[in-house]
Amino acid sequence: MSYTLVIGNKALSSWSLRPWLLMKAFDIPFTEANVRFRQKDTREQILAHSPAGLVPVLKDGDLTIWDSLAIAEYLAEQHPENALWPEDRVARAHARTITAEMHAGFSNLRTIWPMDAITKDAGVLVPQAVQNDLNRIFDLWDETIDKFGGEGPYLFGEFTIADAFYAPVMYRIRPFGPLNMPQSSETYYKAMLDHPAMKEWEEGAEAEYEAGWYS
Amino acid sequence: MSYTLVIGNKALSSWSLRPWLLMKAFDIPFTEANVRFRQKDTREQILAHSPAGLVPVLKDGDLTIWDSLAIAEYLAEQHPENALWPEDRVARAHARTITAEMHAGFSNLRTIWPMDAITKDAGVLVPQAVQNDLNRIFDLWDETIDKFGGEGPYLFGEFTIADAFYAPVMYRIRPFGPLNMPQSSETYYKAMLDHPAMKEWEEGAEAEYEAGWYS
Repeated sequence: MSYTLVIGNKALSSWSLRPWLLMKAFDIPFTEANVRFRQKDTREQILAHSPAGLVPVLKDGDLTIWDSLAIAEYLAEQHPENALWPEDRVARAHARTITAEMHAGFSNLRTIWPMDAITKDAGVLVPQAVQNDLNRIFDLWDETIDKFGGEGPYLFGEFTIADAFYAPVMYRIRPFGPLNMPQSSETYYKAMLDHPAMKEWEEGAEAEYEAGWYS
Repeated sequence: MSYTLVIGNKALSSWSLRPWLLMKAFDIPFTEANVRFRQKDTREQILAHSPAGLVPVLKDGDLTIWDSLAIAEYLAEQHPENALWPEDRVARAHARTITAEMHAGFSNLRTIWPMDAITKDAGVLVPQAVQNDLNRIFDLWDETIDKFGGEGPYLFGEFTIADAFYAPVMYRIRPFGPLNMPQSSETYYKAMLDHPAMKEWEEGAEAEYEAGWYS
């Protein structure tokens, strides 16, 4: 088995972060292929990997999967020895629900506050449309942690696909932080930023920055 | 096992159509609970079922699932005797990919052409932003049918979750049809509109219309 994961810029590509983080968190080996955004040939580069013209893309032999949630489900099936989804039926249904809500929702947050894995503490007012999405996200986190979080530190105790899907939110929030958030959300937010694979992603973003990708 | 599926208006609620159609197509019994949109108490009615304030909602005992894709995955797990996803690994990964692309994408089509299960042949020009989404969808259908469609008539031969997810597209297109589409897309489009459960959904929409829900 030999995976290739095609991703975009680490400072910007929230969709790329998810499967990358998931594979790192579960020690699933893969070859990383990087496509630099905002270049003249960016679109051609992506199309060479994926007919949808979107990253991330997971390749496994002849198989090409170009959606982050489908990648997650595929990996969960291929690696049953790892609990990529929670093992309990009810917890797993809840994890899939909040993951799908993130996959298709929160358009105000996602449009107004793009992911930025480099900037910290820019300090701005929070637009109401963003605050509404954040309130819903904090409620989801709190409810999930309360019901399924156990000893923590992640949404379902151990790290799962749901955490990978909310990971970009950390980098949307951080440039504008510290925000007022409920205690359990804040603890979770900090635990996510402390995850070794998140640190590795940030180092990758910093390296791209040093290499002039954002100038 | 006793399922309740909470749905919105049949003429309008594209998200509701998906799990409803899926359960009907696979003869999974459920109790239907209807929430009428655009009433003063619509939001309260939905919140009584689901914290996300969205329909559809599947209830199974104490479990509440408020996203259509998470509902589909849950049903696929609970009913392994039915192939809600294709049984072949590669076909299943492809089905999950195009389903997820529908779940999170095609925002121009979804915004500009809302689902309408009643109107037929209104005849208008197709905005370019919609045409672009449609072209992508027809490409996806053609590619999928070519690779995995076998004897047809659905995307993967037999009906799967992927068909349920694209079902609302038929009711987005139909008011403005007939459209120019590739032959295999058109054959598929007609087969979907002929599905007995789609007919039953339309009859439900007509009944709501007769009952004054849209006046």
